[in-house]
Amino acid sequence: MRHPQTKKANSQEISSKWLDVSVPIYAGMVHFPDNPPIEIDTITHVERGDVCTLSALRIGTHTGTHIDAPIHFLPGGTGAEEVPLVNLVGPARVIEIKDSDAVKAEELRVHNLGVRERLLFKTSNSERCWETSEFVHDFISIAEDAASYLASLNTLAVGIDYLSAGSPETHRALLNAGVVIIEGLNLKGISQGRYELLCLPLKILGGDGAPARVLLKPLG
Amino acid sequence: MRHPQTKKANSQEISSKWLDVSVPIYAGMVHFPDNPPIEIDTITHVERGDVCTLSALRIGTHTGTHIDAPIHFLPGGTGAEEVPLVNLVGPARVIEIKDSDAVKAEELRVHNLGVRERLLFKTSNSERCWETSEFVHDFISIAEDAASYLASLNTLAVGIDYLSAGSPETHRALLNAGVVIIEGLNLKGISQGRYELLCLPLKILGGDGAPARVLLKPLG
Repeated sequence: MRHPQTKKANSQEISSKWLDVSVPIYAGMVHFPDNPPIEIDTITHVERGDVCTLSALRIGTHTGTHIDAPIHFLPGGTGAEEVPLVNLVGPARVIEIKDSDAVKAEELRVHNLGVRERLLFKTSNSERCWETSEFVHDFISIAEDAASYLASLNTLAVGIDYLSAGSPETHRALLNAGVVIIEGLNLKGISQGRYELLCLPLKILGGDGAPARVLLKPLG
Repeated sequence: MRHPQTKKANSQEISSKWLDVSVPIYAGMVHFPDNPPIEIDTITHVERGDVCTLSALRIGTHTGTHIDAPIHFLPGGTGAEEVPLVNLVGPARVIEIKDSDAVKAEELRVHNLGVRERLLFKTSNSERCWETSEFVHDFISIAEDAASYLASLNTLAVGIDYLSAGSPETHRALLNAGVVIIEGLNLKGISQGRYELLCLPLKILGGDGAPARVLLKPLG
């Protein structure tokens, strides 16, 4: 009943079209300090003679690649189920950040950002932060002046390539303006340019965040 | 800093394009018997004076809307991270099942199924099973003759509108043939027809299943 040739074709097809920029979820993986550790327990397993394999996940709402919902930082804010998916599905730009300190408004201005763009920032985080399961403290995040600038442009979504977009003020500026924050991307090997973005977070009712799967397809 | 009009526009945009067929995830929601209960613990909350809201999820790999990976039923099978996404992203058909007992090969044959289709079965489950957080035992699932038929067509993906595709034999026939199984869809209000399918499961390393967000957009 196996069809290895069909499976091979599928795998080539996906690799030539969609690029997976999500980090894998596994027990003991890196997490933001004070967030719960990631634990996966096997309940039953076909290789132990059970009829099927089942497991239980114990994870935080901000595990790996995920989105932040307004309630993460804003009293009275909405939960993950109300995050508008149109902000997360559609054309997007990957922008390579040269600054080794932070994503700053000054650097963003040279990219002629329009209103209502989906923007993913590729920093040196993608090369240096995901290689270890220890939390990397000196990661690059979004400066408050950049967050205000992105908010003023009604940016649809902002992605960053490690586990936080930045300070509480950065988060509040973005979330207050309806900018959806995507954190925990791995953009290693992804060139600056235009892509079709698919970012689908779990529909967690009232969730302050939600793990997501994120794919990119190069445009033209 | 709030832009209610922009937010309203987003919401209309998404509702006119993408239909969300994922069930919400919440503490105490229905789960398949012997799977872990769904628990969500608030760790910190902005409305209690904390700097941000954080929570911990305790869920099964087969919670709500999810995919099954081959290792769920096949010794030596692959995990969720290797499920080919091309099977889960692309044109799909929603087929309304009239049979009140099971999805059977005889009924499927009248729909002139082609090879390598993505097929979502809308049964009476969508109307009657999701209204309660009690597990509904007499749900409609895929009969073994239908699973063999779908396997023979190299079907890319099969979706069902409650928490199991069917018996172990049904699962094994589908998974052995490389058919990706999507379970826990809510197809209430979705008409039979052609759609663009986006189904993105979490990338759980070695996961026997993975919760997913699933959207449909009507085609033509």
